[in-house]
Amino acid sequence: MINENSSRWLWYSGDFEIRQSLLQNFSREERAYDWPAYWYMDDCHRNVKFKRYYDLAEPTEFKVDAKGVGYVEINDQKFPFGQTLTCPAGHNKIRVFVGNTEGLPAVYLTGEIIKSDIGWVCSNFIEEHPAGWSTLYTKVDQDPNQVYHATEPVAYLNKKEIQGGVLFDFGRAIFGKLLIKELREGKPVTVCFGESETEALDEEMCYYKEISATTATSIRKRAFRYIFIPRIKAEDVEVSAVHEFIPLENKAAFRSDNPLLNQIWDVSVETFTLCSGLFFIDGIKRDRWIWSGDAYQSYFINQYLFFDEDINKRTMLALRGQNEIKQHMNTIVDYSILWLIGVENHYMMTNDVDFLQQIYPKMVIMMTYLQNQTNELGFIYGREKDWIFIDWSEMDKEGTLAAEQVLLLKAYHSMIVCGSILQKETTAYQAAYDQLYKNLLDYFWDDEKGAFIDSYESGKRHVTRHANIFAVLFDLVNPKQQHSILENVLLNDEITQITTPYFKFFEQDALCKLGETARVYEIILDYWGGMLAHDAVTFWEEYKPEETGADRYEMYGDPFGKSLCHAWGASPIYLLGRYFVGLVPTAPGYENFVVEPKLNNFDSLSCQFPIKDGLVTLNKTGDEVIIWTNKEGGEVHFNQQVFPLVKDEPLHLSMSLQPV
Amino acid sequence: MINENSSRWLWYSGDFEIRQSLLQNFSREERAYDWPAYWYMDDCHRNVKFKRYYDLAEPTEFKVDAKGVGYVEINDQKFPFGQTLTCPAGHNKIRVFVGNTEGLPAVYLTGEIIKSDIGWVCSNFIEEHPAGWSTLYTKVDQDPNQVYHATEPVAYLNKKEIQGGVLFDFGRAIFGKLLIKELREGKPVTVCFGESETEALDEEMCYYKEISATTATSIRKRAFRYIFIPRIKAEDVEVSAVHEFIPLENKAAFRSDNPLLNQIWDVSVETFTLCSGLFFIDGIKRDRWIWSGDAYQSYFINQYLFFDEDINKRTMLALRGQNEIKQHMNTIVDYSILWLIGVENHYMMTNDVDFLQQIYPKMVIMMTYLQNQTNELGFIYGREKDWIFIDWSEMDKEGTLAAEQVLLLKAYHSMIVCGSILQKETTAYQAAYDQLYKNLLDYFWDDEKGAFIDSYESGKRHVTRHANIFAVLFDLVNPKQQHSILENVLLNDEITQITTPYFKFFEQDALCKLGETARVYEIILDYWGGMLAHDAVTFWEEYKPEETGADRYEMYGDPFGKSLCHAWGASPIYLLGRYFVGLVPTAPGYENFVVEPKLNNFDSLSCQFPIKDGLVTLNKTGDEVIIWTNKEGGEVHFNQQVFPLVKDEPLHLSMSLQPV
Repeated sequence: MINENSSRWLWYSGDFEIRQSLLQNFSREERAYDWPAYWYMDDCHRNVKFKRYYDLAEPTEFKVDAKGVGYVEINDQKFPFGQTLTCPAGHNKIRVFVGNTEGLPAVYLTGEIIKSDIGWVCSNFIEEHPAGWSTLYTKVDQDPNQVYHATEPVAYLNKKEIQGGVLFDFGRAIFGKLLIKELREGKPVTVCFGESETEALDEEMCYYKEISATTATSIRKRAFRYIFIPRIKAEDVEVSAVHEFIPLENKAAFRSDNPLLNQIWDVSVETFTLCSGLFFIDGIKRDRWIWSGDAYQSYFINQYLFFDEDINKRTMLALRGQNEIKQHMNTIVDYSILWLIGVENHYMMTNDVDFLQQIYPKMVIMMTYLQNQTNELGFIYGREKDWIFIDWSEMDKEGTLAAEQVLLLKAYHSMIVCGSILQKETTAYQAAYDQLYKNLLDYFWDDEKGAFIDSYESGKRHVTRHANIFAVLFDLVNPKQQHSILENVLLNDEITQITTPYFKFFEQDALCKLGETARVYEIILDYWGGMLAHDAVTFWEEYKPEETGADRYEMYGDPFGKSLCHAWGASPIYLLGRYFVGLVPTAPGYENFVVEPKLNNFDSLSCQFPIKDGLVTLNKTGDEVIIWTNKEGGEVHFNQQVFPLVKDEPLHLSMSLQPV
Repeated sequence: MINENSSRWLWYSGDFEIRQSLLQNFSREERAYDWPAYWYMDDCHRNVKFKRYYDLAEPTEFKVDAKGVGYVEINDQKFPFGQTLTCPAGHNKIRVFVGNTEGLPAVYLTGEIIKSDIGWVCSNFIEEHPAGWSTLYTKVDQDPNQVYHATEPVAYLNKKEIQGGVLFDFGRAIFGKLLIKELREGKPVTVCFGESETEALDEEMCYYKEISATTATSIRKRAFRYIFIPRIKAEDVEVSAVHEFIPLENKAAFRSDNPLLNQIWDVSVETFTLCSGLFFIDGIKRDRWIWSGDAYQSYFINQYLFFDEDINKRTMLALRGQNEIKQHMNTIVDYSILWLIGVENHYMMTNDVDFLQQIYPKMVIMMTYLQNQTNELGFIYGREKDWIFIDWSEMDKEGTLAAEQVLLLKAYHSMIVCGSILQKETTAYQAAYDQLYKNLLDYFWDDEKGAFIDSYESGKRHVTRHANIFAVLFDLVNPKQQHSILENVLLNDEITQITTPYFKFFEQDALCKLGETARVYEIILDYWGGMLAHDAVTFWEEYKPEETGADRYEMYGDPFGKSLCHAWGASPIYLLGRYFVGLVPTAPGYENFVVEPKLNNFDSLSCQFPIKDGLVTLNKTGDEVIIWTNKEGGEVHFNQQVFPLVKDEPLHLSMSLQPV
């Protein structure tokens, strides 16, 4: 464990995340080429300095190691890196200057008193901030330009001759390296990778392929379950694999009386774990990019699984980049807005004011960037080259859109919440919120339809689900409007269905929020259970029950374009924790939290979920429910009654609605 | 020679210069540490794309090489780098995407029709521009991340035993690598480098030192004339050196009847050549950094020596960096302003409208940055952390300063000139110019003193030379004021003398402009001749005639802190060409130019100077002067008469002032 006084690698705050996300977003491979993400990307600073003052009773020795070139200053006198230096008694200014033209400039100070522990400030010669660091880089022989993966050897489960070659099935998704252990004839082979058997067996069109491979070939890290080697006999080839990952602790558990649901939980955990590394990525085969919309959903899943604050922070810093904004996040306007909202959620989850302090200036710049594209009604509009995504769906996109305004409204709310915590001036955001709220209702709420329309400028008054879902999720409508949205939109089959898993996440979320957990329970079993019926070992980017055979793997016009291990597929973790167990923080960092279980679908259930610095467990056996936590501040809402949840004291409830 | 249809390496325009200048500004070494420059530095983009449309009568093949990862698109279909691709007949869109996490992303296309010649556009996913390239990178086997130096082996002139060791004198300044050719005893030695003998012999304090060197040691590139190896005998060690340089053509020549002046010319050429690489640097031992003030003077010297447009452009792009400005150039407000003025000068020298088109948007951003720190009178002021340099001199720096306003006034002029050429709207600059001009005279011109005062806010009404010199150089004062400045400031011994060679450049320039060439002639012989009397083989950063012995090499509190090869020491080249020969463009690119010789100090003179696409030669023998050019548009001003200078027709003049 690292404590405040342990040395660690230091860098310009935010730069590690920006640098590594650049590498992450450049790591996509498709067929024989690399595919760097198609947007503007920042890099870390090249030239930074670190400073700290020491008042010393006696002289002390220290040494500076660095990634880059530069020098150490003791009271303005310069010294080289790598030497034992002596700092005299008295008041001393220590500075370290380091430049790195090819990677992240970083420093590590070793010494009894003078060392790179908490208390250093960094500067890019413009701004000064507390120095950045990570629990992942605490040893002097590490390099924050490298990622140190844990590894796990994986043997294949099954090997068979087929199509004149050999097919290996590892029985699980691997994100790592394939090793060719034996090639009896010594002749180089072609290695075809597949998330599906169909893909691996398609020598021409499989996404990854290694040509002329031998036992000496170092094959790059790839995502696969199947390996096919054509034109060879089973006895002439042996392979194995090494799975690579950044260890994350699964703090949740879930076992119910429904084996299918348990399997859905397990595969969700597997899927989400695979897509969680230094950052939340969308999928392990494709794109391996950091998308703000996908990440936004991952924050919610993380909250109920790993409760890993660092991966949230790394992902948010990575997405945001350096101060200046040149383009919307991933080019998408709504993804910029979701990023802002995600910061508020992270704060509610963690009560991490230090991080808020770090990120708030970048929130302000982001909000200014957004406000610069609002009109006199306060409505945000798309500019040339802006991508107004919302969803892949038929939507009336003429003029300003309701869904974007709903998002922006929530983002103003996030600015007000986060700014207030830091005692910043937020009245301008409140005024913008008030104006937008009024105009949103005036222009987009249709009383007759009992719903938000997509666009008022087109005159079509077309209703889709998206804006209405967001309005429910973000608490922007009153109970009457909520009910109206449920009836007139969410449960109205005449409104175009949501088809993407991305937006299905939000839709299930809204349905649960409006009390439709029983309905969502069935959807989980149907939709996610449907993938399992197709032998899924991880959840897919998209699942259409009507598709069969090779069609299941096609997406974006590519026969194997679909990612079969996609983070957003893991949403049952969130839905089960958030709504069925009903766990939610009601004050930042779970200083107060509520458990409001909806357990009618379960005969028995044994589960636990993480909270900030604690755990909540829930066990249901027959009619009895026992809820326990090791943190103060909880209460249970059960059948319109409120029960205090006392730390370390199990609360016994009866499904017949009285505490025992 | 490269022509429009030759392939070349392409990059995002400006990025090569920004990337290489980062490497340049990180190359400083002092004693045992590296010293990256102490300001914010940009890097090149990491992720870029290139695009071009081709209408083809028949299919054609091409291949893409790249520095970085990515792919080629033919009509939106992706292909790997390094393969021969076929583009079909018809209208085609070719795009190349390349990302590079460690250096400059660059591409090279080879093919009969589809190739990386003139006509490609580059994009950083935000802006689109004509792709950048350089005549230095035309071959596919080059890498624009490397600098390819020409080399010249240099043998030492003299070897002697001294101080118990061996001293080698190469007799000239070398900027390159020392080779230890023989070490008879094989034992590692210490190698001490010196620009001066005194420095080399100071084992402890010499600027560069190689510890434990053997014949196998690869010693990094350094600047030196002397090498001292202590504790060894002459017969036990042999060394040689390899000088490294980027070839630049010296297009000027100068031979007069005064051998000392000829030597001053030659040593100026040597000095300036050494300090001219990819960029104009200040000095070869120290700092090796690109300073805008130093570069500004180098542009003028270059104009009369190499007439190398590319090094000007590279230096200006390097100094300016990416679009966003976070800090003044080299942290110095006046250096930002001089950069703007330098662009106008480059335009006048070259008539290069393409470059103006490229750089003008960055001029606008720079001017906006400057204007954001002007007050209601239009005066620019320093903000916290801004360095208002002007010069190392005693100056009343309270409040806004005259010198900065004079510079800013000229910079508005530059915006108006450059903007007008590009048919941009410049009325706001004209209005700012008019306001500042009026207020400059109202607040800073002191009629009684007949000069500009430093500061009006302090009430001291102190006069230094600086603002007055700039006002003369930039034509901001009328003839009466010019005369007043000459009498009351420049020739007034009670006004604090200029002590830095940096500002002496401007002072000599102004004196010559005001007709004081005879005085400047003597100064050149005294000051530069003085350095030669001290055995200088290059001109120094600073020369104080009163200093002797080791004191001559001290600067900034460091016994060998003074650079003995400093670009601005080469100013005689400019002064001789600009004022004694009197050559100056009067329309952009020397479409019109004037030769206005001042030859009274010469009995005989034979010289030539470059102009845009041409040359001017001047020969004086006794009473006869012959002036020749190979370009249209010249005229000679001689004794208040004007003579047309007809292309290829030598103009004969008599010092008795009538043409023969």
